[in-house]
Amino acid sequence: MLNFLRRKVYLDNNATTRVSYSVRKTMNRVLKRHWGNPSSGYRSGKVASQIIEQAREQVAKAINAHTHETYFTGCATESNNAVLQTLSNHFYPEKRKIISSPIEHPSIANTLEFLKPKGIIVEYCSVDKFGFVSAKEIEKLIDNDTFLICCMLANNEIGSIQNITEISALAHKNNILTLSDCVQAFGKIPIDVKALGVDYATFSAHKLYGPKGVGALYARISSPLAPFIHGGHQEEGMRAGTESVHNIAGFGKACTDVPKLLSHTQRIKQLKELLADQLRSAVPGIIINSPSENCLPNTISATIPNVSSKESMMLLDYYGISVSSGSACSTHQDKPSRVLKSIGLSDKAAKETLRISLGIHTRKNDIAYTLKIIKKYLASRTQ
Amino acid sequence: MLNFLRRKVYLDNNATTRVSYSVRKTMNRVLKRHWGNPSSGYRSGKVASQIIEQAREQVAKAINAHTHETYFTGCATESNNAVLQTLSNHFYPEKRKIISSPIEHPSIANTLEFLKPKGIIVEYCSVDKFGFVSAKEIEKLIDNDTFLICCMLANNEIGSIQNITEISALAHKNNILTLSDCVQAFGKIPIDVKALGVDYATFSAHKLYGPKGVGALYARISSPLAPFIHGGHQEEGMRAGTESVHNIAGFGKACTDVPKLLSHTQRIKQLKELLADQLRSAVPGIIINSPSENCLPNTISATIPNVSSKESMMLLDYYGISVSSGSACSTHQDKPSRVLKSIGLSDKAAKETLRISLGIHTRKNDIAYTLKIIKKYLASRTQ
Repeated sequence: MLNFLRRKVYLDNNATTRVSYSVRKTMNRVLKRHWGNPSSGYRSGKVASQIIEQAREQVAKAINAHTHETYFTGCATESNNAVLQTLSNHFYPEKRKIISSPIEHPSIANTLEFLKPKGIIVEYCSVDKFGFVSAKEIEKLIDNDTFLICCMLANNEIGSIQNITEISALAHKNNILTLSDCVQAFGKIPIDVKALGVDYATFSAHKLYGPKGVGALYARISSPLAPFIHGGHQEEGMRAGTESVHNIAGFGKACTDVPKLLSHTQRIKQLKELLADQLRSAVPGIIINSPSENCLPNTISATIPNVSSKESMMLLDYYGISVSSGSACSTHQDKPSRVLKSIGLSDKAAKETLRISLGIHTRKNDIAYTLKIIKKYLASRTQ
Repeated sequence: MLNFLRRKVYLDNNATTRVSYSVRKTMNRVLKRHWGNPSSGYRSGKVASQIIEQAREQVAKAINAHTHETYFTGCATESNNAVLQTLSNHFYPEKRKIISSPIEHPSIANTLEFLKPKGIIVEYCSVDKFGFVSAKEIEKLIDNDTFLICCMLANNEIGSIQNITEISALAHKNNILTLSDCVQAFGKIPIDVKALGVDYATFSAHKLYGPKGVGALYARISSPLAPFIHGGHQEEGMRAGTESVHNIAGFGKACTDVPKLLSHTQRIKQLKELLADQLRSAVPGIIINSPSENCLPNTISATIPNVSSKESMMLLDYYGISVSSGSACSTHQDKPSRVLKSIGLSDKAAKETLRISLGIHTRKNDIAYTLKIIKKYLASRTQ
């Protein structure tokens, strides 16, 4: 029993990830030796500035962008706000409409809601039962008033991967810009912003074993872009404020590990499939909401009938297993998940849904242990 | 000679400060052990959340605020943008005017310029030759359209400390809110937001031996406040985005050291006065722009006639001495400093001005060495 209590199985890698040793080492070095202000003209300032530019190359390379299309921000939420708020400001009142999906992260969804009273019209396309957006559905919403289509690359709660390339082509045919929140996809599937064809894409370090408190914004050359945070000349005047050099260096380092992260894909996917299969046979009535194709290799959304996700989470936490009921950014709300409702779940089912997200540290015995606990304590309660 | 080249004397503590050992240790611990998402409901998430709340207590205590008046942000520039942009949004079009000083940091000055085309009227009071704002001058600008007076506590380039208590009293008498950028004062003079009487105050960790990439915003209870970055529920919905837990913990730790930092005040002030006196006698025609009273204990602004600050900086840098020509946030501009012009310097004089800012690591022999280099290589060139 005590052994059980000591065991830790982290299966919430979509919420955040363990900071890797190499990232920590890089950050420590910067904090200890290179604490100069990157804007200062003397040597220690220049070294700090070079560290930022090296990190920019590392991030840009990982997403196949140019360095002068890659900006550092305080977090991906800030990146999303920056694009949505400054673009709305740029186009309004000549153009007023943004088309989006109903399954976006709160940093998109809540910013869109904020923009509505300012005269921005937001129209949401529908999604199917796996959360897939169809380009045809989006096409129906396009009109001359539309300036932006906003669709995430991979959903954080159920894992569905959208065909952003198709959506971007449609947008550009209609002279519309595109923003894709790539936070949850980065480090889990290969990302190539050129192949995706998007005008803007947003990223966060802490979802790929990097530090919390640093994000990136990809803005294609010649796409309109205006500063969101005003002040100093940092980030070519696009994001004022003294740079968090150690966080940026850590983000860069995390990006150099992307090929290594992607090499885990097959193994993680097999573990996930093993977990899904065993859950299906062990838990009567369980419903797997994640699609089997075009899904993040690490993500399972599962509805366990008649057991609230709060209760499941607490029980699993007691046995050292960390899972979540959905986006960590919505945790403190008692409402059923907006994403799960969009794919057709009832309020009740949405509140009985767990998100299990594997990571590079997940081992077969972690899955076996998790299944054992679920079978022992949860499976019998579903009926 | 080689010995010279190895020597490092950092005299730009107003640009940024060395991250203290205790702050680094705290940050390393969080990065290594407490990388959970503070929004997650399981144990590791709760621990991360507790770390943030402990840091909030530490920051609040250092400025004499309540914890529920203290918000963490990505940097002080973001804090300043948040107050100015959301308050303008709140009051416009009923009230449209902000009164400010002409010597504010770029994060205030450039945000005010951004707000002008949106209908916000910005009026600047005058300052005297030491950069002091007079409440009487501000009073002349107040009208029924005014919703905010915005004045920094201590100037970053010349060190002048304003009488914010008097300005706040004047503002409140007229039913006007006040914002004070306290970034440069924090850790150098005691700060008590209640005694200052301000409604909003902004702070940064990296000016007091903490990490870059984290700021704080004090907003007095019942002052209007709206989210600037929208998304998750973090910071009571006032600042979305996964918290940079290690940076926040580092900021908290740095704040616990504030009494220790303040204990250096007398020593630093004596060193500064020694430096100023010796500069006056060694460099013909030198002008000290900083006031002798009501000035940050560590800051000297000095105009060295006929030697451009760029040249002085480069020469001093060659000998391992780091000083600056003004705000690091304006370094990449070739324009003369707005602050120095406001206190009456000509373009030429402004471009011949150095900012020397001491810190807790500054020793008497650093000052002696700096004076030696200035006497040897700069003093002869002023005429």
